[in-house]
Amino acid sequence: MEAIRIIITGGTFDKHYDEIRGVLTFKDTHLPEILKYVRCTLPIELELNQLIDSLDMHLANRLKILESCRRAPEGRIVVTHGTDTMIQTGRILGEAALGKTIVLTGAMVPYSCSASDAVFNLGCAIAAVQVLPAGVYVAMNGRVFPWDRVRKDREAGSFEEA
Amino acid sequence: MEAIRIIITGGTFDKHYDEIRGVLTFKDTHLPEILKYVRCTLPIELELNQLIDSLDMHLANRLKILESCRRAPEGRIVVTHGTDTMIQTGRILGEAALGKTIVLTGAMVPYSCSASDAVFNLGCAIAAVQVLPAGVYVAMNGRVFPWDRVRKDREAGSFEEA
Amino acid sequence: MEAIRIIITGGTFDKHYDEIRGVLTFKDTHLPEILKYVRCTLPIELELNQLIDSLDMHLANRLKILESCRRAPEGRIVVTHGTDTMIQTGRILGEAALGKTIVLTGAMVPYSCSASDAVFNLGCAIAAVQVLPAGVYVAMNGRVFPWDRVRKDREAGSFEEA
Amino acid sequence: MEAIRIIITGGTFDKHYDEIRGVLTFKDTHLPEILKYVRCTLPIELELNQLIDSLDMHLANRLKILESCRRAPEGRIVVTHGTDTMIQTGRILGEAALGKTIVLTGAMVPYSCSASDAVFNLGCAIAAVQVLPAGVYVAMNGRVFPWDRVRKDREAGSFEEA
Repeated sequence: MEAIRIIITGGTFDKHYDEIRGVLTFKDTHLPEILKYVRCTLPIELELNQLIDSLDMHLANRLKILESCRRAPEGRIVVTHGTDTMIQTGRILGEAALGKTIVLTGAMVPYSCSASDAVFNLGCAIAAVQVLPAGVYVAMNGRVFPWDRVRKDREAGSFEEA
Repeated sequence: MEAIRIIITGGTFDKHYDEIRGVLTFKDTHLPEILKYVRCTLPIELELNQLIDSLDMHLANRLKILESCRRAPEGRIVVTHGTDTMIQTGRILGEAALGKTIVLTGAMVPYSCSASDAVFNLGCAIAAVQVLPAGVYVAMNGRVFPWDRVRKDREAGSFEEA
Repeated sequence: MEAIRIIITGGTFDKHYDEIRGVLTFKDTHLPEILKYVRCTLPIELELNQLIDSLDMHLANRLKILESCRRAPEGRIVVTHGTDTMIQTGRILGEAALGKTIVLTGAMVPYSCSASDAVFNLGCAIAAVQVLPAGVYVAMNGRVFPWDRVRKDREAGSFEEA
Repeated sequence: MEAIRIIITGGTFDKHYDEIRGVLTFKDTHLPEILKYVRCTLPIELELNQLIDSLDMHLANRLKILESCRRAPEGRIVVTHGTDTMIQTGRILGEAALGKTIVLTGAMVPYSCSASDAVFNLGCAIAAVQVLPAGVYVAMNGRVFPWDRVRKDREAGSFEEA
């Protein structure tokens, strides 16, 4: 059984309500807690790359993700990412043609809020990354898209084929 | 985009606390509610096959699942199932060699209890069923096993390669 | 058994994550849903007075609450309110000396986020309003304060005696 | 500010799903966790008296609760208790006439299951115990009943005046 790496970059997935300031922000990642209670026995390397809203990402942020993917000893990588610019990061990873299977995922509703899609999307990404051939993909809405055939419908808040 | 079918059979996944009788039992399936809030846009046919604890399943129960798989117009099917005898049903489906991709999944903790693995496992199964070749699989613990190479470690409460 | 009125004004208690715009905002009140699943059998009149962050309240907003309290046929009233200016509204209600028992409550973490204090605080307020004599009170942090002997410690995010 | 004591006896409130054995049972109390996230600043002494389904209680179990109430230095006590025989324990505490304010509460749905009334009921009990005169009470369904004027409607799963 091959280990996978999860590169954490924040996004809505990991947003948390700061009750003192009254805002949704980042404090820590919820990934270790989630992987424990879903009873995941797959060997997983967690890498906290950054905790950022993907609307605030600059090129440097995306290159940092690319660099982590390149350096990772694992050939199968999940990247948690804000949905707003997930596709832009996907393009950078896709064009780099690393010969690895990389699946980007995220959430429309924070894990820490009710009716969140975070854990479902993570499940999709973890399964997809283990069975797909080398390439870069987006796993959202119960579907898995190649990085260059997906768009986000901002009004509907969902991803679809492009 | 190809539609998938989810054949619901109950199991811990769908158990619900009956506050009048003070027991965990079945009332209805939670699948429609889950698929809505996880924002799944994949076309899915839900089929309520039975709502039963898999320890109570007889051969007739498993044959009913086989029959549903056989009759389904879809070539890709997820079966929600109790974990205790999921592998026995997997064998019956596997030996029938239907030429379809069938993924069994379930939960160790009911969806309606905290720290449940149900939604994560469902995500794994839905992604796996879309990308795997024809065959019968078990998706549990973040992993996907062929039906004839998996066993349940009852003491650990997890599935592993056999 | 005497009916009570709950006057809803919004606040963090009722904030909801808008996944399209990516912000915490108001959509609807969660009170009817909560009162149902907590199995409250007390006759309760729900009144949606406004849905607003209490930092955005002007005097007119507070007078609208006062007017509702005055007009209510019930002698026992719970007001859900943002915590930031709950005490200011409490003063207006207290100085009006309506001869009714009025309990203000709210939440530091939205009901729709994990680890919310909303339901606990609501329980405190509903019990307090039934047993306290006429007057205006704040129920937060498991305590019940008279309106003129309470302050909010903004750094700790909790209420204390003043 | 006077400290209160919470005497924990189990009941549905504290039941937990044991995923290895597939049953609802007791493992530990959830009270410390709850009191923390609801941001309760009231000084509270937690006493783990027993963890038992109240249908399994014998007289000795109830006398153990009485003894704890008697010995407690606090004059205000909340007892978490299974709902099935809460009233029987209430009678024993009530007839002992300890001159303290004692509020029994519990839950119809375990805290660890969705749509639980546990935290709401706890809020009711904690507020009620601080404001009521000496006596023994049951706080359930958003209401507070004297121990000798309450009955449980087993079919409806709720408490009402007797």
